[in-house]
Amino acid sequence: MTETTIPYKIYLNEHEMPTKWYNVRADMKHKPAPLLNPGTHQPMTVEELSGVFCTELAKQELDDTTPYIDIPEEIIKFYKMYRPSPLVRAYCLEEKLKTPAKIYYKFEGNNTSGSHKLNSAIAQAYYAKQQGLKGVTTETGAGQWGTALSMACSYFDLDCKVYMVKVSYEQKPFRREVMRTYGASVTPSPSETTEVGRRILAEHPGTSGSLGCAISEAVEAAVSAEGYRYVLGSVLNQVLLHQSVIGLETKAALDKYGIVPDLIIGCAGGGSNLGGLISPFMGEKLRGERDYHFIAVEPASCPSFTRGKFAYDFCDTGKVCPLAKMYTLGSGFIPSANHAGGLRYHGMSTTLSQLYDDGLMEARTVEQTSVFEAAEQFARVEGILPAPESSHAIRVAIDEALKCKETGEEKTIVFGLTGTGYFDMVAYEKYNNGEMTDYIPTDEDLQPGFDSLPKF
Amino acid sequence: MTETTIPYKIYLNEHEMPTKWYNVRADMKHKPAPLLNPGTHQPMTVEELSGVFCTELAKQELDDTTPYIDIPEEIIKFYKMYRPSPLVRAYCLEEKLKTPAKIYYKFEGNNTSGSHKLNSAIAQAYYAKQQGLKGVTTETGAGQWGTALSMACSYFDLDCKVYMVKVSYEQKPFRREVMRTYGASVTPSPSETTEVGRRILAEHPGTSGSLGCAISEAVEAAVSAEGYRYVLGSVLNQVLLHQSVIGLETKAALDKYGIVPDLIIGCAGGGSNLGGLISPFMGEKLRGERDYHFIAVEPASCPSFTRGKFAYDFCDTGKVCPLAKMYTLGSGFIPSANHAGGLRYHGMSTTLSQLYDDGLMEARTVEQTSVFEAAEQFARVEGILPAPESSHAIRVAIDEALKCKETGEEKTIVFGLTGTGYFDMVAYEKYNNGEMTDYIPTDEDLQPGFDSLPKF
Repeated sequence: MTETTIPYKIYLNEHEMPTKWYNVRADMKHKPAPLLNPGTHQPMTVEELSGVFCTELAKQELDDTTPYIDIPEEIIKFYKMYRPSPLVRAYCLEEKLKTPAKIYYKFEGNNTSGSHKLNSAIAQAYYAKQQGLKGVTTETGAGQWGTALSMACSYFDLDCKVYMVKVSYEQKPFRREVMRTYGASVTPSPSETTEVGRRILAEHPGTSGSLGCAISEAVEAAVSAEGYRYVLGSVLNQVLLHQSVIGLETKAALDKYGIVPDLIIGCAGGGSNLGGLISPFMGEKLRGERDYHFIAVEPASCPSFTRGKFAYDFCDTGKVCPLAKMYTLGSGFIPSANHAGGLRYHGMSTTLSQLYDDGLMEARTVEQTSVFEAAEQFARVEGILPAPESSHAIRVAIDEALKCKETGEEKTIVFGLTGTGYFDMVAYEKYNNGEMTDYIPTDEDLQPGFDSLPKF
Repeated sequence: MTETTIPYKIYLNEHEMPTKWYNVRADMKHKPAPLLNPGTHQPMTVEELSGVFCTELAKQELDDTTPYIDIPEEIIKFYKMYRPSPLVRAYCLEEKLKTPAKIYYKFEGNNTSGSHKLNSAIAQAYYAKQQGLKGVTTETGAGQWGTALSMACSYFDLDCKVYMVKVSYEQKPFRREVMRTYGASVTPSPSETTEVGRRILAEHPGTSGSLGCAISEAVEAAVSAEGYRYVLGSVLNQVLLHQSVIGLETKAALDKYGIVPDLIIGCAGGGSNLGGLISPFMGEKLRGERDYHFIAVEPASCPSFTRGKFAYDFCDTGKVCPLAKMYTLGSGFIPSANHAGGLRYHGMSTTLSQLYDDGLMEARTVEQTSVFEAAEQFARVEGILPAPESSHAIRVAIDEALKCKETGEEKTIVFGLTGTGYFDMVAYEKYNNGEMTDYIPTDEDLQPGFDSLPKF
């Protein structure tokens, strides 16, 4: 296949779309450590998890042996409305950088939720519907996950209760209205609708809320109402499983043109996009079939992989969820107020944590002004205004392409463009006005987070 | 081709993309009436138009004989970054409506400008660059056109000065920041940067601006600076020409599967989307090759086609632009303040006006609450949150599909989904809160607009 025959955008045909998700845990020699019951410190069972999650999802969460799991027909049907997503050859960016590198990105932003989150939202809504549930509850910060879930629930006619961090509810009314348009009820958190919400409001009158508090409210709302379960958009193994559709499509599109990537780059918050993108390639690496260089990119101000501890920790600030062994900054860690670019979770997927600990991937931090600089450069030549989260991957892709310019290497770089930045214009405005600054936490800054790690 | 083999989304391959725009005027027996010089009332010449527009664009504006015009290579390259746009089979909507009708929509919202406007913006920026200009000026209301133009100018490294109606500049900071991210300078209008702006500010201190005023400022900024020209995103013949890429792709995608539409529906403001979508089909109708039923959909509160006069009128409120013969409510017409859904231009493309006057298409008005009802229904089953403008076409497509349900007819309906509503959440919020109302102007309400028509 000659260079010029590779189109700007590679779209799979419908019949080439994946029909099974790939479960990378099945090929891992060192399995991710089990979730532990926070009370007993014993591994969580499907039965225990089923109180909070749908039963089928609880099973997927604990299944580390089945390599391929059928995507149900109804989910495939929904996927066809916004997938396959394009694998784009960044010809214009390459030309601008004058690099011999070949750059591709898998673009997940062409749906109304604006990101890859929809891939798992529709799966979680489907299993809830299958189980005969009335609805699901969740929390959302900026609203990306909440939007995806509200779209999925609306499709299956399922009730969707979103607890939205109060400060976002007030400052980001657009995302809130998108969710409401899809029929979700959106409650500013903390609220009077839950016991934990009422307690927090009594203790901290006038609080603007936090993600930790919203999680606690969403979990309480799920377990205290008949026919409801709680759902989560990242970190979990089930989410990585659903998101493997990103990597499977990417690999099928590359294979179609005989392209073999050298470098695969993804941004890393809780790991949903990175894990989904790299899974099938990591599978080849784990099975010794082919080697790839993977780079996880995280913000310098929230450096879970690069400066965190690999330890059991709470998944939520409220400490109501199971314990997970992961790279973590401690559930008490709070990113600096100047941090504008997403990816602010204190921990990381247990699967990715194990892979990183086994030396199977690299992690790198970038500072936010350089991230927005890359975002702007990308937008101006490739057209798409990227989400700040996605722009972490763009930064490193550009850095690597510029290295190739120095060395003359013709590396093939693939990165995940997880979404669009249309609802992040406040952060862009800060950058456009030259008011954005960088912040690298000192070891002392990180200590309070580590102090919150469970002692056992 | 059996029903089940038609995919959810029909994407053309790159080599199937149009390489020429189609100029429907070439096939019209009754040509659109010429633009007139507002001083002399004589037809405008290329030379006269070249003072305001790029020379090549002035030629395209007046060319009513050449049926096909080559799309320059560099524009095709840019098109490949976000085109072909998908022609989507609305299987989920059909199922929800339980209609025997087959519904397709051409979705133009999958680019950062969020609409079809980019198709002409990139062409106009290209010709400006070719002519060796430094930059272009334009006006924008809500910011859709300004965003598209700023993306196009950034690609060609061309200066872009946008005059944004002051009230939008202040109330829609997100669009403003998207434009700034693409390097455009955005000035709230009226401003101190032009003579007309200073005059208006002196006469109306504290005014929040109007589109008419912003046009006057943009035109003044273009003609008073060396190396600048003015560009416009709708109404003009050149814009319809560039937008024909929508219809050409639609036709190629339908032809690929042997589908022949019965009904083709588009929303109509200035006519850029409707004209682009229907052009190649209208060409077949004009040449007597095949008959189609076309429906232009406009807001009940701004009914240019259905209640306007077919007369020479000013294209702008400031009366500095040439006179055009079109269906118009008068350049002094101002839509009701309660109107939230776009498509608020007082006039209509001269080409579409002539076609409508010749009985070659139907026009229909819809009220805005029913438009948002259709938008919400569409969003919930098809996933995409549509722009209010586009939702006018959705409304009529659903109405027609429901008629088919009554009659049992298996009509094939194609409509233009011009863009996404991500920056229109204030209007959606109004609808979600049950605060949106309808308004049909009385004949008395329309009279002041008609009084502003030129007397000659």
